[in-house]
Amino acid sequence: MQLTKEQLAQFDRDGYLFFPNRFSAEEMRTLTAAVPELYSRREAYNVREKGSDAVRTNFAAHLVSEPFARLARHPRMVQPVMELFGEGVYMHQFKINGKMAFEGDVWQWHQDYGTWLNDDMMPTERAMNVAIFLDDVNEFNGPLMFIPGSHRKGVVEAKHDLTTTSYPLWTVDNDLIAQLVERAGGKDGGIVSPKGPAGSMILFHSCLVHASTSNLSPWNRVAVYLSLCAVSNHIRRFKRPEYIAHRDFTPIELLPDDCLLNPPPVDVPWQDGMPASALQTSSVPIDEIRQAA
Amino acid sequence: MQLTKEQLAQFDRDGYLFFPNRFSAEEMRTLTAAVPELYSRREAYNVREKGSDAVRTNFAAHLVSEPFARLARHPRMVQPVMELFGEGVYMHQFKINGKMAFEGDVWQWHQDYGTWLNDDMMPTERAMNVAIFLDDVNEFNGPLMFIPGSHRKGVVEAKHDLTTTSYPLWTVDNDLIAQLVERAGGKDGGIVSPKGPAGSMILFHSCLVHASTSNLSPWNRVAVYLSLCAVSNHIRRFKRPEYIAHRDFTPIELLPDDCLLNPPPVDVPWQDGMPASALQTSSVPIDEIRQAA
Repeated sequence: MQLTKEQLAQFDRDGYLFFPNRFSAEEMRTLTAAVPELYSRREAYNVREKGSDAVRTNFAAHLVSEPFARLARHPRMVQPVMELFGEGVYMHQFKINGKMAFEGDVWQWHQDYGTWLNDDMMPTERAMNVAIFLDDVNEFNGPLMFIPGSHRKGVVEAKHDLTTTSYPLWTVDNDLIAQLVERAGGKDGGIVSPKGPAGSMILFHSCLVHASTSNLSPWNRVAVYLSLCAVSNHIRRFKRPEYIAHRDFTPIELLPDDCLLNPPPVDVPWQDGMPASALQTSSVPIDEIRQAA
Repeated sequence: MQLTKEQLAQFDRDGYLFFPNRFSAEEMRTLTAAVPELYSRREAYNVREKGSDAVRTNFAAHLVSEPFARLARHPRMVQPVMELFGEGVYMHQFKINGKMAFEGDVWQWHQDYGTWLNDDMMPTERAMNVAIFLDDVNEFNGPLMFIPGSHRKGVVEAKHDLTTTSYPLWTVDNDLIAQLVERAGGKDGGIVSPKGPAGSMILFHSCLVHASTSNLSPWNRVAVYLSLCAVSNHIRRFKRPEYIAHRDFTPIELLPDDCLLNPPPVDVPWQDGMPASALQTSSVPIDEIRQAA
């Protein structure tokens, strides 16, 4: 076991676990070195900021870039999530979010599972968010903010926000946010934002309500956000393109702990371009397709 | 003297001084109680947020509301500024900035003196910004951010930003901000944001570069921002309306230290409405008007 009893209890209570310096600076350099080339690609998986060329979100880097493909199979990240769920996990979503210096915009309060339920028909909340800092995170470059314990509320009502952010998001009502923050301790711990050096990692529950403010600082705040879903909980509909919500439900096989520094060969099927099938979508649930077949 | 030698040296070096709990909770209640009535007035001095009825900035409350008129003459605020300048001061600008819960928007990096020089023809930097917190300020409700020592650069190049914020502002270029932050210590103190309970006060130099991010929290962050100008340094042009840039250069007479709790009578000439003259403007400098007369 990688997680202690205290950590399991803490995750249950607060909905997140923070691991400062989970990866070394040397390990992180193998990842950050690969980002500019990824961002330069003119592919649908690079979503840019409103009115700017800066990349807000890059999707599916683990299918394009070898270092990120290794991170996606790293035991320091995947193992604790397998422990929490008690089964194998697959990669549901893999994002690099570039909240860039001076330009990074607001993400309104939201839960991720709301989207996965509404869009992807993911049956339950048995999917974990993982954030890995590619840059140092401080109070000035738009850190993630969590409302501790808000995951216990399950899926809360949300509205589809297509205007405030560059990316459609199911956002939570202000009155409910105020209630959740008050219940979590108000000004005394009702909002938290883990900060630390590049290489730090956060695991957070797919129902934990989170947001982040704009980045007015001169420091980029690029982070990898990925979602590991319990294999039994795989999505049931392919309404969103594959580069956003993955369709390969094979359990992740772990690489050795030193895989970033002594890199073993790894498969990157989209290295030379994304297949046309990754853009195909269907609003029909999988089981209806199967029944009709 | 209210300021120590250390404080004088600190102000010279950093460009600001922070006084947590400068006013008591009881004193602050006399002020906050007067705000809703002020905000409800449909007058030009209430500037509202883009696409919302929330007041972003209220101007000239010291001419409308007795508690704010007393604050404008309070020795705990005015005395240290007189000490720093070695002469009497008058009220150049008086604002209540309501960076409201969930709605408060970004203020880009700027210097205030840039505006006073360009618009008001204020001869030198001998004017002091004062911020007094009407609400608790924490890392989540959009605190003021300063670049320590940036005041020593004097007036820096700025462009007139009419789109990003609700209020026209001379904002500073990103490359210069990055340089100033690096010079001030980079990630180790290159940006600071004083936080504290309601009643705390900041004095900051009119050339100190500052900004504030959006307020996604459920906590209002209302603050009084006022500018005390050395009498000899009064503005030379009335290009902006009087409710924004005042034209009465009489030195402020101090009230007793207990004036908020044992309120003496005080003059509030705009209580029953703003005079038409307060909206009149002229782009001709005062001395040219005088010469022509």
